[in-house]
Amino acid sequence: MSTIYLLPNTLGDTDADLVIPKNVQQITSNLRYFFVENLRTARRYLRKIDNSFPIDESVFFDIGKRVDFHDVKNYFSELKADAGIISESGMPAVADPGANIVAVAREKGFKIVPLVGPSSILLSLAASGMNGQNFAFHGYLPIDKLALINKIKDLEQISRKFNQTQIFIETPFRNNALFEALIKNCNPSTLLCVAKEITTNEEQIITLPVSKWKKQQINIHKKNTIFLIHTS
Amino acid sequence: MSTIYLLPNTLGDTDADLVIPKNVQQITSNLRYFFVENLRTARRYLRKIDNSFPIDESVFFDIGKRVDFHDVKNYFSELKADAGIISESGMPAVADPGANIVAVAREKGFKIVPLVGPSSILLSLAASGMNGQNFAFHGYLPIDKLALINKIKDLEQISRKFNQTQIFIETPFRNNALFEALIKNCNPSTLLCVAKEITTNEEQIITLPVSKWKKQQINIHKKNTIFLIHTS
Repeated sequence: MSTIYLLPNTLGDTDADLVIPKNVQQITSNLRYFFVENLRTARRYLRKIDNSFPIDESVFFDIGKRVDFHDVKNYFSELKADAGIISESGMPAVADPGANIVAVAREKGFKIVPLVGPSSILLSLAASGMNGQNFAFHGYLPIDKLALINKIKDLEQISRKFNQTQIFIETPFRNNALFEALIKNCNPSTLLCVAKEITTNEEQIITLPVSKWKKQQINIHKKNTIFLIHTS
Repeated sequence: MSTIYLLPNTLGDTDADLVIPKNVQQITSNLRYFFVENLRTARRYLRKIDNSFPIDESVFFDIGKRVDFHDVKNYFSELKADAGIISESGMPAVADPGANIVAVAREKGFKIVPLVGPSSILLSLAASGMNGQNFAFHGYLPIDKLALINKIKDLEQISRKFNQTQIFIETPFRNNALFEALIKNCNPSTLLCVAKEITTNEEQIITLPVSKWKKQQINIHKKNTIFLIHTS
């Protein structure tokens, strides 16, 4: 039985030794088959953890957004050994492509082994000081202004009802618009955590009630950012 | 400004080099002040990553369940340098104590730095093949039989309505009771993932529709296990 490894990537331009365990780097550099969200970033990652990694002797299957799921299924017939899944940053299959590959691999009888690496969801939650016993991750919120306001109010209600931390992300160039919508529409007592460029030199993780965010500066434009709210 | 590091622990008896990055081990072994869920397991962890770690020259503050939160606040006046939080296994403050320490530390102006390590929630989700774009972690489900059945049905409904993976845990000696309640009360088409002893030699992660679990064996009695369901 062959194995499919879930290979974490660094979050941004971070030293791999800070975020990827030694044995995970070792397992990764021994593989020659990869399902990748982005060919360029996957190659760069492999060279980062092993500067003599034989890129040209390796096989890369594209699992990015523009690839048809039917083609993804066909990749498996080309596998001659264990393979890994690499996303653009962080854990594959969590807030990133890969879950459909895992599901197909399971059906085909592969063993699935998840390996440890950075996750902005987990790291921001731990550092937020918010409830880590009960939390939900929602991916991207709606772009439409009215739908976004309704969603924010829904998340506040769910948080209050279940004492559940609500976590979400935005495309980096829309971060300021989301931040402003949160400040304008959340209850002043709702706690908001803004976590920026986690594990990098630019890391900033700030938790404040919405009322105090009105006076707090944080530059998140085009920065990788994750947002958490909790209402008690 | 002093720093409070969130220090991941291994999940069970695993080689630290498989789950804790090299620089995280380094940062950990340079600290001398620790907030710990369990003194014995924290000391064992420190000796695991550095067998000459000076336990006797270090200060340990108990943040286990039996400690009054008022006492926790007083610990901060005894801090003379940067400190770390260590839970019994995995990430502190996520499905484990630590969030209240982080919240107090934030109020007192400490910098909070989360470090990378294993999380059974993230690893099981990635390996489940279920939706990783939208998921919720609920901690422990109710023990009372009727309340448990109602909760299971609620989680199925939420999963269907929001296309959201539902994740939960149980005290290891009650795993079989929870597993049987899931098999009996979930819709036969609901996907159930049972993930056992993640990152250890005993790791098993199986995803099947509830209808097929009736014929599948897995020994989870007194084993660290995490459960995930998804209904589409």
